[in-house]
Amino acid sequence: MEPSLEVAAVECETSPERYRHWVLSFDGPIATLGMDVREDAGLRDDYRLKLNSYDLSVDIELADAIQRIRFEHPEVRVVLLKSLKERIFCAGANIFMLGTSSHGFKVNFCKFTNETRLAMEDASAHAGLTFICAVNGICAGGGYELALACDEILLVDDGNAAVSLPETPLLGVLPGTGGLTRLVDKRKVRRDLADIFCTLVEGVKGRRAVEWRLVDAVYPTSRFNDAVLERARTLAAASDRPADGVPCLLPALEPSVSDAAIVYRHVQVEFDRARRTGTLTVRAPETAQPDTLDGIIAAGEAFWPLRAFRELDDLLLRLRLNEPEIGTLIVKTAGDADAVLAVDRTLAAHQDHWLVREITHFMKRTLKRMDLTARSFIALIEPGSCFAGSLFELALASDRSYMLDNPDREVSIRLSPMNGGLLPMSNGLSRLQVRFLGEPRVVDEVLAESEPFDPMAAMDAGLVSAAPDDLDWDDEVRLAIEARAAFSPDAMTGMEANLRFAGPETLETKIFGRLSAWQNWIFQRPNAVGERGALKAFGGARGRPEFDWKRT
Amino acid sequence: MEPSLEVAAVECETSPERYRHWVLSFDGPIATLGMDVREDAGLRDDYRLKLNSYDLSVDIELADAIQRIRFEHPEVRVVLLKSLKERIFCAGANIFMLGTSSHGFKVNFCKFTNETRLAMEDASAHAGLTFICAVNGICAGGGYELALACDEILLVDDGNAAVSLPETPLLGVLPGTGGLTRLVDKRKVRRDLADIFCTLVEGVKGRRAVEWRLVDAVYPTSRFNDAVLERARTLAAASDRPADGVPCLLPALEPSVSDAAIVYRHVQVEFDRARRTGTLTVRAPETAQPDTLDGIIAAGEAFWPLRAFRELDDLLLRLRLNEPEIGTLIVKTAGDADAVLAVDRTLAAHQDHWLVREITHFMKRTLKRMDLTARSFIALIEPGSCFAGSLFELALASDRSYMLDNPDREVSIRLSPMNGGLLPMSNGLSRLQVRFLGEPRVVDEVLAESEPFDPMAAMDAGLVSAAPDDLDWDDEVRLAIEARAAFSPDAMTGMEANLRFAGPETLETKIFGRLSAWQNWIFQRPNAVGERGALKAFGGARGRPEFDWKRT
Repeated sequence: MEPSLEVAAVECETSPERYRHWVLSFDGPIATLGMDVREDAGLRDDYRLKLNSYDLSVDIELADAIQRIRFEHPEVRVVLLKSLKERIFCAGANIFMLGTSSHGFKVNFCKFTNETRLAMEDASAHAGLTFICAVNGICAGGGYELALACDEILLVDDGNAAVSLPETPLLGVLPGTGGLTRLVDKRKVRRDLADIFCTLVEGVKGRRAVEWRLVDAVYPTSRFNDAVLERARTLAAASDRPADGVPCLLPALEPSVSDAAIVYRHVQVEFDRARRTGTLTVRAPETAQPDTLDGIIAAGEAFWPLRAFRELDDLLLRLRLNEPEIGTLIVKTAGDADAVLAVDRTLAAHQDHWLVREITHFMKRTLKRMDLTARSFIALIEPGSCFAGSLFELALASDRSYMLDNPDREVSIRLSPMNGGLLPMSNGLSRLQVRFLGEPRVVDEVLAESEPFDPMAAMDAGLVSAAPDDLDWDDEVRLAIEARAAFSPDAMTGMEANLRFAGPETLETKIFGRLSAWQNWIFQRPNAVGERGALKAFGGARGRPEFDWKRT
Repeated sequence: MEPSLEVAAVECETSPERYRHWVLSFDGPIATLGMDVREDAGLRDDYRLKLNSYDLSVDIELADAIQRIRFEHPEVRVVLLKSLKERIFCAGANIFMLGTSSHGFKVNFCKFTNETRLAMEDASAHAGLTFICAVNGICAGGGYELALACDEILLVDDGNAAVSLPETPLLGVLPGTGGLTRLVDKRKVRRDLADIFCTLVEGVKGRRAVEWRLVDAVYPTSRFNDAVLERARTLAAASDRPADGVPCLLPALEPSVSDAAIVYRHVQVEFDRARRTGTLTVRAPETAQPDTLDGIIAAGEAFWPLRAFRELDDLLLRLRLNEPEIGTLIVKTAGDADAVLAVDRTLAAHQDHWLVREITHFMKRTLKRMDLTARSFIALIEPGSCFAGSLFELALASDRSYMLDNPDREVSIRLSPMNGGLLPMSNGLSRLQVRFLGEPRVVDEVLAESEPFDPMAAMDAGLVSAAPDDLDWDDEVRLAIEARAAFSPDAMTGMEANLRFAGPETLETKIFGRLSAWQNWIFQRPNAVGERGALKAFGGARGRPEFDWKRT
């Protein structure tokens, strides 16, 4: 059942000069992302990316482009997505790639594409960017899901171009990149119309697409390009992005990668493969950090929070995609807590500056990536650690935290304004708010505390899971980690997905909690991935799929 | 992979004199549900229900008991759940039953147990009942999930009794009956403590169980029974249930069941097994219905809305459990729309009476059962139909609706106050509110309309999916049904689960949308159900489970 056609190791870093599938161009406040997928440049060579279909390599470039527009092009206010191919916008995720990928790869591929779409919506909500999707041809499946992540969808009315979600009727799976959720929850398409739409292989075009709320406007071919540009100019006027911001360039991270460890400047992981664990350490700033806007702008990407969280983000992706057997991550911090708190104060003080805002939202997205990583995280708060402010979020994002209670060696936790709502989870609440759903007053109490929390105070306040003394520490921590690593990996994934997201739900949590869970279910069903399943049968020599008709 | 040890056909009707697993007794305002599972009286004879473990037969009796307490015992204000066995409260769902059941049966078993737990919470929220769980022994897995569905959990402190969710560490699956969700969302247990709790096979007992919010109080053995009774008496004082209400007895429905059809008094389904469809028809009242409280009380169970929705509820369960290949239901109504609307007016006018309230909430729960049934529903609104008021909810609950537009034959839709919020979905909104999430003003507009909606008006208002004329009707409807029946059943299940529940989320939608979807995923994984999976290995001769360690 599980094909072995895996790629060796995926790298998620890239840069525009290395893009193979997208052309990123700029015209004042308008950036254009032109999709022009190279058929022969996918991650593997046993499929071809026809008709602007995509695999992970295409989405890695898209994610990079959006990130660079935010940091490197502060003058951009509108991002225009279009296809550079004739009569085809995008055919969605490549079916042959999906049909021959392992279950785990499919799940992680969908998770990354979901995060990229949500990063676009995050930019719309928080970065002053507006995304316009100019659908200049057939827009199917993941292609339409990409459009759904934009603020406005403009469709050419040429008798050919249509939007569609043919996954269900054609492939026996779901539109897995948020499509179903965005239809009914974001665009508020009526559920019966959504039902009809999702079973129409040919999709919907022209006026009907507008009437059903599937697109925002249609234009005849002759007027399409002008109308799109006019709309882009109108929307650009409303943004608060600076025309004269200094670009913050994002150089390659260049980690040292070996079988034993992945080491960045501030972040590293060391593997204990026999125990299926990794020790992830984030270090506090070791050099002086700027505390003024000019200093931050001058430091650019080298400013510690941006650099450290870029490293953490890249590491989380490598762990997900390349290290599936490392099931448990031991989370540590090291260095000077005061240095972390000083940076936090600087970030909190300059939230109205576009670059500080971008850095903060990127830290937030990285922590969300951690929340959504299907690995167990156990934070160890030990002497020499610096679980302070934004780095304490790593402990809050962990499934458990252990704090050493040894009166001879100082260990403490400290909070900062960054714990007070600037780094919300995907449900919109801070990690402290979710932690104390049952005692909301505790959130304000711990945030108001100016003194460090020693182990006893941290336990009393509910900030850590346990605080063993030095006699018990080694055994208790070792047993917790060994036990964790011995549990069913699937049960851990399901348990964590349910325990991590208490409280309200959002489009984002619905996509990961409901839609993805159902898609993962379907991705295992013989009706989809069996020898005669729909995903295997599609376009192949095996003929029509054969279904087990039983409904569950 | 799919064992064939299925039971022939499950019947979900029972009554107290036939109970094998529960003893239901009454003492004034306090009903006691004593769990005393008969090991040899499960649905199948290849497992034994040891230690008060349960299968569907146990839960069918529980659901019946709760329903009868609501209707037949208006004087009851507190329901006390306890075990009649020594030192064991309940060991949860029977593992051998789970390990040898088909995937579809496991999913439907969990769905029914979830609905039963939610019916308890519905009674707490809306019927003036309070559920106290007196945990007088080991309370594991589904046993603790049953406790979690109660308003208060009282635990004996005898050094033995503990609450636990050992599914993850012991069986490699999730607590699938709402446990994870209720821990963090209902009881607001801190996520790290929940994480530790869910991996402790032996569970948590005594004071720690209170400190972690897992139970509400603990009492020493000597005081336990008195303390429970005292608490029950205190809580009974607060209810608005009548001491002198006339019981509404619920007789057996006695449908005629054949291979071709299931026929009740007001409801029936006829199967077309070759096409894998069923035609479900609900008929309007055919005799005079009461319009006064005295009349309703005298009519009792024969009052049309109660009887018709009891029949529909029973039918939905039979379809789920016994007819997995009937993937598409064609939903029809027949009879006098005025008679339906008259009943609706009566119901709406007497919402402050306990019996009318019970009838209304039961209609609501039945419609929720339909929302959660993994079958495609297509409503056909034709001449002679009566999609009016509460019966129009059947069309709103359907995935699509087609209305015949033939000027020579009158067809209409009519709304009533019952469409205005008295029959909410599990997300708390009315079906009209969910339908018009994108245009909320339409909800008030259609509710204010006193005239019937003819096909044109219904299309204009957005009340139906399509209104083909008599020339197109046969082909369009036939093609829609044929196409539906030909799609992957799994893709339909996943698609409907995502499109039906737009809008806000509740504990209930989280349980079905997130927790159940993950559980269904895990229920297919080799790590759980493979030959060396945890569920198969448990308690058997196959030794410890062997896991594929890859995380997804």
